[in-house]
Amino acid sequence: MKYPILPGGVTAAKGFRASGIHCGIRGKSEKKDLALIVSDVECTAAAVYTQNLVQGAPIAVTKRNIADGKARAVLCNSGNANTCNADGEQKAQTMCELIAKPLGLQPTDIIVASTGVIGQPLPIEPIADHVEELAAALSEEGSLSAAQAIMTTDTVPKEAAVQVTLGGKTVTIGGISKGSGMIHPNMATMLSFVTTDAAISSELLQKALNHAVAESFNMLSVDGDTSTNDMLCIMASGLAENPIIAEENEDFAVFTDALTQMCVYLARMMAKDGEGATKLIECSVTGAPTVESARKIAKSIICSSLVKTAMFGEDANWGRILCAIGYAGEQINIHGVDVSIRSNAGQIDVCKDGAGIAFSEELAKVVLGESEIEVVVTLRDGDAAARAFGCDLTYDYVKINGDYRT
Amino acid sequence: MKYPILPGGVTAAKGFRASGIHCGIRGKSEKKDLALIVSDVECTAAAVYTQNLVQGAPIAVTKRNIADGKARAVLCNSGNANTCNADGEQKAQTMCELIAKPLGLQPTDIIVASTGVIGQPLPIEPIADHVEELAAALSEEGSLSAAQAIMTTDTVPKEAAVQVTLGGKTVTIGGISKGSGMIHPNMATMLSFVTTDAAISSELLQKALNHAVAESFNMLSVDGDTSTNDMLCIMASGLAENPIIAEENEDFAVFTDALTQMCVYLARMMAKDGEGATKLIECSVTGAPTVESARKIAKSIICSSLVKTAMFGEDANWGRILCAIGYAGEQINIHGVDVSIRSNAGQIDVCKDGAGIAFSEELAKVVLGESEIEVVVTLRDGDAAARAFGCDLTYDYVKINGDYRT
Repeated sequence: MKYPILPGGVTAAKGFRASGIHCGIRGKSEKKDLALIVSDVECTAAAVYTQNLVQGAPIAVTKRNIADGKARAVLCNSGNANTCNADGEQKAQTMCELIAKPLGLQPTDIIVASTGVIGQPLPIEPIADHVEELAAALSEEGSLSAAQAIMTTDTVPKEAAVQVTLGGKTVTIGGISKGSGMIHPNMATMLSFVTTDAAISSELLQKALNHAVAESFNMLSVDGDTSTNDMLCIMASGLAENPIIAEENEDFAVFTDALTQMCVYLARMMAKDGEGATKLIECSVTGAPTVESARKIAKSIICSSLVKTAMFGEDANWGRILCAIGYAGEQINIHGVDVSIRSNAGQIDVCKDGAGIAFSEELAKVVLGESEIEVVVTLRDGDAAARAFGCDLTYDYVKINGDYRT
Repeated sequence: MKYPILPGGVTAAKGFRASGIHCGIRGKSEKKDLALIVSDVECTAAAVYTQNLVQGAPIAVTKRNIADGKARAVLCNSGNANTCNADGEQKAQTMCELIAKPLGLQPTDIIVASTGVIGQPLPIEPIADHVEELAAALSEEGSLSAAQAIMTTDTVPKEAAVQVTLGGKTVTIGGISKGSGMIHPNMATMLSFVTTDAAISSELLQKALNHAVAESFNMLSVDGDTSTNDMLCIMASGLAENPIIAEENEDFAVFTDALTQMCVYLARMMAKDGEGATKLIECSVTGAPTVESARKIAKSIICSSLVKTAMFGEDANWGRILCAIGYAGEQINIHGVDVSIRSNAGQIDVCKDGAGIAFSEELAKVVLGESEIEVVVTLRDGDAAARAFGCDLTYDYVKINGDYRT
């Protein structure tokens, strides 16, 4: 990787503190379910949201609150999505008011988010009873607690940070994310919160974010279901004291590149921790006529239930990969397709010029036995490329989702 | 149902015989794997095919053979899809030549099809060695054997027939179909063969078929994967001696209606027998602005992995239904959506005006305990309607597809 992944997550950048505690949103669970991220100074802010027509109530409130391109804090609960409830927006607003008080901020300074079951009224009392405790727990080492508090069916917390030098100053970008099922972001992402101490205008921050999301979270799918509550927001404090990025110069390119790499890292973590997953499946497509077509083909492959179950069964059933290329909706030369499957254990070439070639089933078993598998598709239609990130489909996915509410 | 479903399948109409035998396409299996349907007279023929860019070799040959709107027989093997093989088209052509001889027909009279694993060379010897036996086995009671011989992971053979009276003559339409996984037909269907003794021009036969497919097989999904070998063809012998249908008159409307109902019946059978399925899930959408939007929303729901697993778990997690409506890509009024779930055991209303309403979890368990579940979505955006057919997502789907090739 170009930029080494550093620890510290959302509190790695200068001026950010975070916390995560248990407040009791869901009946029996003892799990942390309330997260807070606060900046010491006013931040430039940008966000992307789910394109689902059904949107979580917090999204409407957040959109209003960062309409001015500014924010100071993020409040997020897990265990209840606060979506499809008649009183949802009012409760999201109340959440902002509740946390603004102990922080000494305005409700409009708050980015608010919820994740969990859809269509059950959000209990506001556990939040009201715990906002002071949450604010008191803020710390510069609080990223992990916050990352844990936003988890639902995730099995591991997801954090990452990277650093770049801009105008002689060290700029840090750090983030946390959650998401394991209902993962098929569309022009948005699952919940992810990113902080940076870069000085950057809100316009260019949004532009950098859009680029990063297109290459990372929007190329991720666990189960093809686009959530109602996907949200990624980024806050930039400017405390790195780099020359402010206000045009698309070299610094903007470096910042965008580093942000993109960090988002790809988080997206891969989410794919690997997909509900029930035993394997990360990464698909790279090269030789496509356009980036858009490369993206569609790569996503078609990682979204195929048949490819996903074959990977779970460690079966090199490459015909399903060709099939998924064929229904991706892109007019490519199917007789010019090569396919290989590789992992740390080796590589097998399974298809040349759109037709099967002999390969060792023994080696295939070894290659597919690894926990990170790459499907390499080479087209002969141009020079565009893309990567997509997914996981296998397993008994445990069915188990987890056959009885999610109880 | 408007027209009672009758026995006899593909041999119910006058002038058709069929057979199905074991020839040994796949190593160990003892299952029937070669099917034949023959008409006593030349037939008007029409077909629809997969829209997958990767297409089975038999499709290219069949397209050429019925380009004149005429056919006499169908030859179909299971166990190997004859797709993504360098010599596929040549072998499909050889299949036509092999069966033409004992039938006393021309190779160009034959509709040829294959279904099974993709990307493994088709062994032609078992077919060559058994075409005479297959022809000798033809019988007017042969539909069931043919239906069995085209099955792959199907657990039950699928047959149906209906009758209508046209111009004072009884016209019969009968069909067989197969398909259990890789089922997400796009402008086409899985393998299905339909026969009728109606007298009808090939142009109007194609038109009636297109209508029937749009309402039946194209509204069916088991796993979102559009196969490379989908094909539905219909042969009309004219032996019912009805006044030939050569314009869009009342007879055409009745014929199309009956054909559509029979195709819906077969599509429902396929959904119910989806790989690993324990439940048929039917989704009806009313109040949509256009038929196209109703179809997209109904399909979005039955395709959702999260809805499918919730149904398997008999969990009335209706938020996932709203979520799937929301990402269907149709601009409907989400605050005017009502959702009910019903089965033979009763009905629960779970969502009104886009928000959750209280329902009995006890009754929900009973309703969802049945083997056929209907999700009823009522919109307030118009008066168009559609129905889609799917199934639950279960451990067995993962099991079946984790190790399909062995």
